[in-house]
Amino acid sequence: MDYAVRGRIAIAADKFSEDLVVAKRRGVSSDFPFDHIIMTNIGNPHCLKQKAISWPRQVLALLQLPDELGVDHPSVHELFPSDAIERAREMKRALDGNGLGAYTHSKGAKPFREDVASFIERRDGARSGSVDVESIFLSSGASEAITMLLTALIRDSTCGCMIPIPQYPLYSATLDLLGGKKVGYYLDEDEGWGLDIDDLERSLNEAKAKGINVVCLVLINPGNPTGQVLKENEVKDVLLFCARHNLVLLADEVYQEKRAADELGLIDQDSVQLCSFHSVSKGVYGECGQRGGYVEMTGIDSDVINVLFKLAASKLCSNSTGQAMVSLMVRGPYKGDVSYDKHEKEKQAIYEGLKDRAKIMSRGLDKIAGFSCKSASGAMYCFPRIHHLPKGAIQASEELGMSPDTFYSLDLLSSTGICVVPASGFGQKQGRYGFRTTFLSKESEAVVDKIRRHYEEFCLKYT
Amino acid sequence: MDYAVRGRIAIAADKFSEDLVVAKRRGVSSDFPFDHIIMTNIGNPHCLKQKAISWPRQVLALLQLPDELGVDHPSVHELFPSDAIERAREMKRALDGNGLGAYTHSKGAKPFREDVASFIERRDGARSGSVDVESIFLSSGASEAITMLLTALIRDSTCGCMIPIPQYPLYSATLDLLGGKKVGYYLDEDEGWGLDIDDLERSLNEAKAKGINVVCLVLINPGNPTGQVLKENEVKDVLLFCARHNLVLLADEVYQEKRAADELGLIDQDSVQLCSFHSVSKGVYGECGQRGGYVEMTGIDSDVINVLFKLAASKLCSNSTGQAMVSLMVRGPYKGDVSYDKHEKEKQAIYEGLKDRAKIMSRGLDKIAGFSCKSASGAMYCFPRIHHLPKGAIQASEELGMSPDTFYSLDLLSSTGICVVPASGFGQKQGRYGFRTTFLSKESEAVVDKIRRHYEEFCLKYT
Repeated sequence: MDYAVRGRIAIAADKFSEDLVVAKRRGVSSDFPFDHIIMTNIGNPHCLKQKAISWPRQVLALLQLPDELGVDHPSVHELFPSDAIERAREMKRALDGNGLGAYTHSKGAKPFREDVASFIERRDGARSGSVDVESIFLSSGASEAITMLLTALIRDSTCGCMIPIPQYPLYSATLDLLGGKKVGYYLDEDEGWGLDIDDLERSLNEAKAKGINVVCLVLINPGNPTGQVLKENEVKDVLLFCARHNLVLLADEVYQEKRAADELGLIDQDSVQLCSFHSVSKGVYGECGQRGGYVEMTGIDSDVINVLFKLAASKLCSNSTGQAMVSLMVRGPYKGDVSYDKHEKEKQAIYEGLKDRAKIMSRGLDKIAGFSCKSASGAMYCFPRIHHLPKGAIQASEELGMSPDTFYSLDLLSSTGICVVPASGFGQKQGRYGFRTTFLSKESEAVVDKIRRHYEEFCLKYT
Repeated sequence: MDYAVRGRIAIAADKFSEDLVVAKRRGVSSDFPFDHIIMTNIGNPHCLKQKAISWPRQVLALLQLPDELGVDHPSVHELFPSDAIERAREMKRALDGNGLGAYTHSKGAKPFREDVASFIERRDGARSGSVDVESIFLSSGASEAITMLLTALIRDSTCGCMIPIPQYPLYSATLDLLGGKKVGYYLDEDEGWGLDIDDLERSLNEAKAKGINVVCLVLINPGNPTGQVLKENEVKDVLLFCARHNLVLLADEVYQEKRAADELGLIDQDSVQLCSFHSVSKGVYGECGQRGGYVEMTGIDSDVINVLFKLAASKLCSNSTGQAMVSLMVRGPYKGDVSYDKHEKEKQAIYEGLKDRAKIMSRGLDKIAGFSCKSASGAMYCFPRIHHLPKGAIQASEELGMSPDTFYSLDLLSSTGICVVPASGFGQKQGRYGFRTTFLSKESEAVVDKIRRHYEEFCLKYT
């Protein structure tokens, strides 16, 4: 089992970071040619100084406070807006008056799941009450829900799961742990990391010929690590492919699958098996540390849901703060509430910042001679390709028993303090080299510049 | 895989509870002979109106608030005591200024792990710096750490783990999921649920004869479900047993093992392999929903720690609130701080309440004709034995395909609204019947009374 986003390079970066702290504390200069580490290895917005959106945090603070020290305190209005106080009161009732300290239902507190159900109905233009609250499980980030679903679906080592190449390593790591088979399908870099149904069919047929019982397919959209957003027809093609081959579709961070399935009539025909994951970690919230997420299931066999429920019960429940944060993400202040305008303004500012930095980063990397980088249209990642790595570097990497792009990434880290993840950690076509970086850092322009200058020196050094 | 504490009876109780809410909302009387459910199936103190201790909650609230709305707000002193503000500032620095929204290190934020290390040193009278902060992993409650350890230790289906009978079902459920072998050893009810080393030897020998590679032993102390506290010599015997047979000791909620291991010289001889689990869920904090916990390891193979680190990395990190709560539990306000006296008083009041109710519950149950119940000296559970179940009940349970004590517990629930867990869910000697209940409910006397009256009627009904 390997987990590249927190693997070798990230561990080295942690070590460097500690050494820098120690040097600073001692008032001596460090041996590094940089004064801080820029962690672009993981989508961790708050670590790169993205600010928390205020209103949900105000509600969470009130939820932590016992009533007499919070919502009922005579001075509560000095610190908290009235709509945060009202929502906190409502959420305390939703938690049966037990507050954040009690275990909730193993699926998550029902009123919070009801918020998620309403959110999905509004988002998909579905009728009120059409989403079954019992098909929603709140989880500790999306990761936990994904792991639980794979655990329920992969019964033994004959079972397989189709995963994109490149893919987020949670899938490969969990499948390795469960002993399931990874059945890869390629995303096409030349087509902006698009999907090719012929390649899906090829991959499935090859797996079947090997006797693998393929039970599910993972779709990551917007792509991770690739950052692309799939076209509507690509999404529909995948849905029809899954329906045709009776595969459960695990849709990671996806918002358009269910509406597309509805448009295709697959929901009415009862021929879609869809699990959609969402979390508070991504996008404008970026509340990774709160560990809030959910899965919503459509057309999933009750046996699978029963296993999921047992797995959830054995963990007792996901953390109550993360559950509350999910509720606050899917239902913010209403138009007209005192916090509404500020809340929208904060969200918009973060969104614009992300969009700007995505451009700076993907265009900047694309312009480096020897690099190419598809424009990042979603998520928070760029996945540039390095078309040329000098022979000396490839030789050196082989001698050290690491992939060439791991060797490159380590050199980049020790020269510039920039921590990226080698593309080989996500899987890629033979002979391709590259890395994944986030576009969260407010130093995006400097990062691009440092990567460019380092690459020039790297090529000189190893040619 | 089965998980009795959230199994059949608890699911029925949830359903009844919802029906009661619906009836109340409609203003009609329900069909039940009770007006509320008393959830004694799970150690969930805040659900039974145990109040949160104020000071840690005040610090957590400040941690949620962005600086300008919290620690730096001009009116912050109106709501928060100065020592909570100071600690929040310190913890914000400990989180690198990123607050609760950022992923932490996969093992947990290092300054919080340092707090745990100092706590363990103080508790065990060990020298400062003797506990390695890198051997501590913060986790989402103790459950997550336990699951991770078992995942790392049980490599395949030839591996086994010794577990007490009766035991908390997390162990059996996780071992079933991992495909490992459960190797049971009996706790002796007649000896106050004590340990018998001869029985441990017998059990280990039988397992070895079957070709099982026994790698670890679980010790739960204070006992769950049994509520006993082991004697010092029992703990030492288990430590020597594990050292003799090269077993990793998984010590659940245990505080005395490490000191005992030290006294025996096992730590100096490097012949102890000990994993100690602790959480914020139990005792006077009872902060179950916050999901904070940790494991501390002594003498554990670096291979195992590396696997653990990879598992932790694949989950990214445990929730930041739970991590912060661990730090606040192991390091409260200092003597002389403004909140110190109130904090101690709150803890003491909860402790006294638990002690009183433990007595009421265990003595009350022991006095019911046909029952016996060992006095509960720790944790929050009573595990009474029912010496006589009427033949009619046993017959009826067989016809329904459930254990006799499950049948009894369902009848108790539908007659009184009291939700307990049948003893068969924890394992027990053939022919024993009983259940586990917590002594958290403030209605303890009424609960005992209802159980007594129900048992009389139950015996009449089925004889």
